[in-house]
Amino acid sequence: MSELARHFDTLAIIGVGLIGSSLAAAAKANKLASHIVLYDLNPAVRSRVQELGLGDVAETVETAVSGADLIILCTPPATMGAIGAQIGTHIQAGAIVTDVGSVKEAIVQQLRPVLPESCFLIPGHPIAGVEKSGPDAGFATLFEGRWAILTPLADPRPAYQDAVERLTHFWEAMGAKVDCMDPVRHDQVLAMTSHLPHLIAFCVVATAQDVEAVTDSEVVKYSAGGFRDFTRIAASDPTMWRDVFLLNKDAVLDLLGRFSEDLTALRRAIRWGDGDTLFSTFERARTMRREVIEAGQDTAITNFGRDLTASAKAKDDGKSD
Amino acid sequence: MSELARHFDTLAIIGVGLIGSSLAAAAKANKLASHIVLYDLNPAVRSRVQELGLGDVAETVETAVSGADLIILCTPPATMGAIGAQIGTHIQAGAIVTDVGSVKEAIVQQLRPVLPESCFLIPGHPIAGVEKSGPDAGFATLFEGRWAILTPLADPRPAYQDAVERLTHFWEAMGAKVDCMDPVRHDQVLAMTSHLPHLIAFCVVATAQDVEAVTDSEVVKYSAGGFRDFTRIAASDPTMWRDVFLLNKDAVLDLLGRFSEDLTALRRAIRWGDGDTLFSTFERARTMRREVIEAGQDTAITNFGRDLTASAKAKDDGKSD
Repeated sequence: MSELARHFDTLAIIGVGLIGSSLAAAAKANKLASHIVLYDLNPAVRSRVQELGLGDVAETVETAVSGADLIILCTPPATMGAIGAQIGTHIQAGAIVTDVGSVKEAIVQQLRPVLPESCFLIPGHPIAGVEKSGPDAGFATLFEGRWAILTPLADPRPAYQDAVERLTHFWEAMGAKVDCMDPVRHDQVLAMTSHLPHLIAFCVVATAQDVEAVTDSEVVKYSAGGFRDFTRIAASDPTMWRDVFLLNKDAVLDLLGRFSEDLTALRRAIRWGDGDTLFSTFERARTMRREVIEAGQDTAITNFGRDLTASAKAKDDGKSD
Repeated sequence: MSELARHFDTLAIIGVGLIGSSLAAAAKANKLASHIVLYDLNPAVRSRVQELGLGDVAETVETAVSGADLIILCTPPATMGAIGAQIGTHIQAGAIVTDVGSVKEAIVQQLRPVLPESCFLIPGHPIAGVEKSGPDAGFATLFEGRWAILTPLADPRPAYQDAVERLTHFWEAMGAKVDCMDPVRHDQVLAMTSHLPHLIAFCVVATAQDVEAVTDSEVVKYSAGGFRDFTRIAASDPTMWRDVFLLNKDAVLDLLGRFSEDLTALRRAIRWGDGDTLFSTFERARTMRREVIEAGQDTAITNFGRDLTASAKAKDDGKSD
């Protein structure tokens, strides 16, 4: 594919949270678009985007998308249908419309009917995120080494296939690896690797906040025993996660059923003193860490390397004694 | 307290895993004992300890503790009673005997009857750990900035109080902060901040391994969506964790009951489309991250700083653009 095809004239980013602002920074850093136009429903976010110099700020979503040849919807999953309906008649022919939502089948269902035939809808989802939200949280390297999943429609037009290829190169130019997948399959896989872990992390933190026998300050004080890891993912954006669970209901409920059964089995093993069941479950679970690291999906450095940062750097030096 | 009182003549470490080897390294680095003697039941571990130069390796547990004025048991929680019975008659009068077990009441019950009156039993637990095990995992700075909990007995002898003070200074000299606590209270608090999170992490990973609809390699590939955080704590030592759950059964079962109720409520909210319940739970959980960071119990750096390590260091530089 030529350099020209990889480059877009005007990239419109709708919704400027962590992902929207990271996309703007990454597209700018890698010179992937001549113009970047951003819009957010929240006027305070629009002002902040202006201050951060992420691109041109549009005052309405309609003007943001007019003239864009790549439109990326970065708003919470449940908002996509309404936004699609609002911008539908303003999208130029041949534009690529994609999104970054954590659920895919529901978003396809929302967007497909409200967008014009003349544009190319290619839903997407970068498997990249951090525990911080908003336009200040974004950074240009968020997608480096991460997977970006595209769930193209069954659209036989050659121009559609070209559009998929252009969008693939766009993500690759930001350092991502691209996989194409059926949207239903995406939702099943992500329910396991992302949605269930987030729901459980939110729930563990909520349980800790409600337990009368242990105060919140004790929980915080002794959180290095394991709890602190859960607080990181429980710090993710609540609006986005609410939408994810409501829109990927069946897959999440199915896995929650499985998890609850498995947890009940462990609970029974504890009650009856069945150490063998506990040991074999723990031993088996342990192997997965190595696989995650070998696949380059996490750092092999102890404690995520959290002790190597800032003032703790001195500790690392001590370690090599 | 004088420098002399803080210093021990012979420190005996029984069980050389992550904590035992870290204690040896920290005691050596901070010059807290003239001699360090180590013993492990596993001959391969003893050889490795020799190679690592952590101290003098004893061939039996009896010789390891003979002549020691500080004995630290670092073996799995369920082994403490048998080891105490084995070493009881070999402990010199006035020696301090402590441990690092993650449960306290059960260990007090095991050790108290089998140790001589002439030594000072002061159970303990450093809230510090990483996902790696064995003598190679240890490092001298593991306890820096972490809490070490002591659960002293109700022993009115002034010499016992002096011993508690000496042990407190020993931990402080390795960079730890010391709290004294009732053993039952310890077990309740740690059930929430450590035991429940570990059980849930083990269970999430086990569920992922068993789900037929999603392959293990897909789980690994897309684990950056949240799952990878769980694999870290699920990589902890299975023997130790089996013992923890069996020995802190009541507190863990109580919290598991609470957690399961809370998770069922979220499950019901998802099934019935109750977005308000989901949002308010997530919003509330989010606040705890800030508290953990303000208390100095975790890094404030995005993604635990895992992206700042090794080759990813370049990304951080990019972030400041």
